[in-house]
Amino acid sequence: MLTASSREVRAKLTGLVTPEVLDDDGAAARHYAHAIWSCVTEPGDGVAGALIAECGVIAAVEAGLGSGGTTNAALEAGRRRWQARLSSVEDALDRARHVGARLLVPGNPDWPVRVDDLGVHAPRALWARGNVASLAGDSALALVGARAATGYGEHVTGELATHLSRRGATIVSGGAYGIDGMAHRATLAVDGVTVAVLAGGVDRPYPAGHADLLGRIARGPGVVVAEVPCGTPPTKWRFLQRNRLIAALSDATVVVEAGWRSGSLNTAGHAAALGRALGAVPGPVTSAASAGCHRLLREYDARCVTSADDASELLGAQSPAEPVTSGRTDDRTRVLDALSVRSPREPDDVARRAGFGIDEIRGLLAILELDGRARRGPEGWRRVTSPS
Amino acid sequence: MLTASSREVRAKLTGLVTPEVLDDDGAAARHYAHAIWSCVTEPGDGVAGALIAECGVIAAVEAGLGSGGTTNAALEAGRRRWQARLSSVEDALDRARHVGARLLVPGNPDWPVRVDDLGVHAPRALWARGNVASLAGDSALALVGARAATGYGEHVTGELATHLSRRGATIVSGGAYGIDGMAHRATLAVDGVTVAVLAGGVDRPYPAGHADLLGRIARGPGVVVAEVPCGTPPTKWRFLQRNRLIAALSDATVVVEAGWRSGSLNTAGHAAALGRALGAVPGPVTSAASAGCHRLLREYDARCVTSADDASELLGAQSPAEPVTSGRTDDRTRVLDALSVRSPREPDDVARRAGFGIDEIRGLLAILELDGRARRGPEGWRRVTSPS
Repeated sequence: MLTASSREVRAKLTGLVTPEVLDDDGAAARHYAHAIWSCVTEPGDGVAGALIAECGVIAAVEAGLGSGGTTNAALEAGRRRWQARLSSVEDALDRARHVGARLLVPGNPDWPVRVDDLGVHAPRALWARGNVASLAGDSALALVGARAATGYGEHVTGELATHLSRRGATIVSGGAYGIDGMAHRATLAVDGVTVAVLAGGVDRPYPAGHADLLGRIARGPGVVVAEVPCGTPPTKWRFLQRNRLIAALSDATVVVEAGWRSGSLNTAGHAAALGRALGAVPGPVTSAASAGCHRLLREYDARCVTSADDASELLGAQSPAEPVTSGRTDDRTRVLDALSVRSPREPDDVARRAGFGIDEIRGLLAILELDGRARRGPEGWRRVTSPS
Repeated sequence: MLTASSREVRAKLTGLVTPEVLDDDGAAARHYAHAIWSCVTEPGDGVAGALIAECGVIAAVEAGLGSGGTTNAALEAGRRRWQARLSSVEDALDRARHVGARLLVPGNPDWPVRVDDLGVHAPRALWARGNVASLAGDSALALVGARAATGYGEHVTGELATHLSRRGATIVSGGAYGIDGMAHRATLAVDGVTVAVLAGGVDRPYPAGHADLLGRIARGPGVVVAEVPCGTPPTKWRFLQRNRLIAALSDATVVVEAGWRSGSLNTAGHAAALGRALGAVPGPVTSAASAGCHRLLREYDARCVTSADDASELLGAQSPAEPVTSGRTDDRTRVLDALSVRSPREPDDVARRAGFGIDEIRGLLAILELDGRARRGPEGWRRVTSPS
């Protein structure tokens, strides 16, 4: 697989890329290498990102997936987890071809350069069903919020999506029930452009009850997109990473309704960390579905969004990007994933599991300890269960 | 009147001040002088304030109200308007005595020193019915809002007033229908301390439909207070000045519901200008009664208040006072009052009417022109009618 000829690469990419890419051996090789990396890594894998940034994506395939050895612990751990997934590449490409998905990689004319602000945590590739050009629209607004939305939240979402898409903005959301679904539907209703960002592969509509809605999005002027390859089921980590992608694909993010611990606050945090404009729609203080929005107004300095004009204003007011912070936030989640609540683990074990160097892991563990999310004991580190 | 003997002063003040004041000739003379100034000036009269700051209140009576002349145009205009009201003093004192009102002046132990932050625009005196000591409580929260409140606004006001008064805060409001009335009533219901600040004299319950409520406040542990003397009807100017007094009497101001151009935003502006903490309660973006609150969140950087805890936090977080700005805002309103929409006026005429020096008035007119609220023409200055 790693030593495929130009002809073999062309065969593998047929149907997934434009004829221009197929006709250019260099471009085809880059697309194929990115596709491999997309299949063997989890979203946000900074070790792979750093390796690719250092070697270039094609040489990184040999360095990270070939038979050579390395003395770098993080890279060695990476090689082990990446190689274990090499066999899935063929199947992912077949599935993508089967559902008519397109493969986009950095440098492709349709690649949404906004996501490059994620640095080494940027996606290796995007898999898209529909009008891929809509990903790189001039003005993209993320409208996100609770699955358990109220009639009020759905009404406001409908108003914002309708008016903003009529003003030419692309409406980005996560395809979920509640606010997300209403954002997509209201945009479709006025023939607007909407982007649904999935946590699993674009061949697996999620939630299943939105299969029809996602199909309509893919057939309309918008697109259904994911960074994980076809065949990948959504997981908690992938939902969190999908949230960072919604924020990165958008110029501004507005949370319409969100409970006190809603996943939408995670999207909002990513938007703020990326220096993207962040807004929250207020609601009755007596409504639990607005508690997260009020929290964003109080604690995250989100702008109070009450109308389409307010949302438009937000699209025109982005602050400078700070991708470093975003990466750091992702790193902590990865370290938490590498910790166990029950079994204490030594720092070098955690570093290997999370894919970080030993010095890096010590710093991250110290931060998590300060946050009360990890605890050091005589036998090693454990994860602290969250109070939620 | 200006040359009353100690015995005459004591007779005039009997029933209006404490025995301690009556027994101290100096204190009695100061109280009487302040009462005179309170009767002859409009709230916020900075010329009188400056004169009193310069001469002391007793000498200022002779300088501002005696028969001597002056070459200062603003002072001369002041003398004319003040002297025209000298005859009202006797009646105001009689009315105050008749309703059992107390006279408070700066330096009196019960004087609420918070209002001194208003500088030369601070009240000359306060007239109070009820427990005057409640004006100088440790922690005072203004809860204000629309007369046309919704059930939601009244519910939230009731919750905030109940919990904050139980935590020992004094609840300050304006005695109006809607949010104000609910703030007072909810506080009375838990035997809390509430202060009603009126735009007219405390002998004239306003609105008339709240005569009973204001009576209950005066008989309870709180107080009904005004800076204008008894017998004075409320006017638009006095409502605006009353709003500045609500802000100045409180450590923090929370607007619960307010339309887009509500008078409560004026109170909020004063609170912000005085460096007092400012909060706004969000509501549905579909409710016109919350539009002013959302405006405060967006444009005035008000804190989003969703609970009694949020309001308590606000009481603990005041920023340094900036009384200069407040004075300047009042000054502009006074200049606008001195301008006519139809008849152009020369700057010296405006200066005389508004009670400012000619240099001061040129600066203020220039600011109003920039704001689009005054226009310069070949024959002089006119007021621009507001778009509302």
